[in-house]
Amino acid sequence: MTREAVLIASLRALATHPAARGLNDDCAVLEFGGEALVLTHDMMVEGVHFLPGQDPADIAWKLVATNMSDLATKGAEPVGVLLGYMLGVDDARFIAGLGEALAHYGAPLLGGDTVSGTGSQALGLTAIGRATHRPVPSRSGAIIGEALWITGPVGAAMIGYEAMRAGSGEALAYRRPVALLAEGQALAPLVGAMMDVSDGVLLDARRMALASGVTIALDSLAVPLACPESRRHDALRWGDDYQLLFTAPADIDLPVRATRIGMVFARGEHPLLVDGLPPPEGEALGFEHN
Amino acid sequence: MTREAVLIASLRALATHPAARGLNDDCAVLEFGGEALVLTHDMMVEGVHFLPGQDPADIAWKLVATNMSDLATKGAEPVGVLLGYMLGVDDARFIAGLGEALAHYGAPLLGGDTVSGTGSQALGLTAIGRATHRPVPSRSGAIIGEALWITGPVGAAMIGYEAMRAGSGEALAYRRPVALLAEGQALAPLVGAMMDVSDGVLLDARRMALASGVTIALDSLAVPLACPESRRHDALRWGDDYQLLFTAPADIDLPVRATRIGMVFARGEHPLLVDGLPPPEGEALGFEHN
Repeated sequence: MTREAVLIASLRALATHPAARGLNDDCAVLEFGGEALVLTHDMMVEGVHFLPGQDPADIAWKLVATNMSDLATKGAEPVGVLLGYMLGVDDARFIAGLGEALAHYGAPLLGGDTVSGTGSQALGLTAIGRATHRPVPSRSGAIIGEALWITGPVGAAMIGYEAMRAGSGEALAYRRPVALLAEGQALAPLVGAMMDVSDGVLLDARRMALASGVTIALDSLAVPLACPESRRHDALRWGDDYQLLFTAPADIDLPVRATRIGMVFARGEHPLLVDGLPPPEGEALGFEHN
Repeated sequence: MTREAVLIASLRALATHPAARGLNDDCAVLEFGGEALVLTHDMMVEGVHFLPGQDPADIAWKLVATNMSDLATKGAEPVGVLLGYMLGVDDARFIAGLGEALAHYGAPLLGGDTVSGTGSQALGLTAIGRATHRPVPSRSGAIIGEALWITGPVGAAMIGYEAMRAGSGEALAYRRPVALLAEGQALAPLVGAMMDVSDGVLLDARRMALASGVTIALDSLAVPLACPESRRHDALRWGDDYQLLFTAPADIDLPVRATRIGMVFARGEHPLLVDGLPPPEGEALGFEHN
């Protein structure tokens, strides 16, 4: 295991609370008053999650969008955010982007902390949401016989990132990803399991299968692309797209646009089958924390 | 203004939500599910808030304690925490200290994010609490005619810090500060205003006076000390003590030990009087974010 995997395992051992699903890639969901409170925290570090020369307004946007996407997977509406901000090269640009993103999602800034730093800039955002439907969707709810769906194409962030690195093109999908809050709320009453594909379709589908104790059979050619067909292999393994991946009956009339890309079966030997076969051992399926 | 002050001013301009009191030195308080949800986020950075050689278990403890102290000022009970953790030199020690602190306060780890980093280690903690009394105490509630009280002595963290720097002594008050959650809950129904003195008694008393629109007259010799009398001047200006500073009637029978250290008057020319005089212009009263 990597150092981070060891750490995460230790933290998971500490996180024994029933609401404690919110480590790295999921939200915490807990009863508060008569409602379900949804909480998520994401950190971004210069040189790891963003490039030193990147526009701080884009970084702020992305920090908000990744957290809002976490809320979207729970069918939650945003209540507000807390910001942990280390002073950077252009704080005014960061705040401009933060303001834009918060206005876009209707999420007020409730508080946080500002600090000076000496090394790479580190940023944290806590998003607080209110579930609009109970039970609150989770990645563990996939039901045998359901179909696997995705709300839209993947590969846009990959193409955008490559364009940005090459200094060409707008790279909007990478710079300004959009969290699907309305879609998540519309889908929440209908889904078995739901998550986003921020770490890659294949990796996230595998996580859903593992959490749900099922096997997911994914039809790789059915996954809609926002990039050339020749990049299909990479696009299925790239993160930073914020489409919603969910299970629901195959014949359902969905309230949002979505594409069927697989089926849920009883758990077999492998949690994930891609075009009928388990992915090769040791092949990276996406962005792994561990 | 410093860069950080400019930043904070910009963030405050963005934080127009009525619950948005939670920037840097206060909690956000909002209605949720028929109850009052209390939220706070603190960040700590290596080289700024802790020393590179410090025991990671102590750093974890302090990160938890500062956030729990914020909850204490609201009379809130902890619901849980979200951790933003950048890999450090000894993650196992950090987790050991985190586990100790969370067990001490009965605050479960609900989730968070772990990241790798390249420079100084940055840590963030979001604490979620439930107010035990309404209205929820704030720093703006001081009432003319009330007395100013403090729950215990200041100066312990200063002495501890100096001992640690000198390599002598246990430095426990600096390494393992204790948040007064039970005291905050017991006081909440009785106080006008309440806050902690984490940035220094004089500075925090001045903030309370400004927020409440009153003048606070503080009797510097009445403030109990956990250090030699010769250090009184410094101890009143040192942060990192987590005593609760609050206003309540002068003749009240308090449920916790506390010392009267001043009075609340109608706002005069100066928000803070120390022994009858305004502190000299330009003199640092404590740890200032701005």
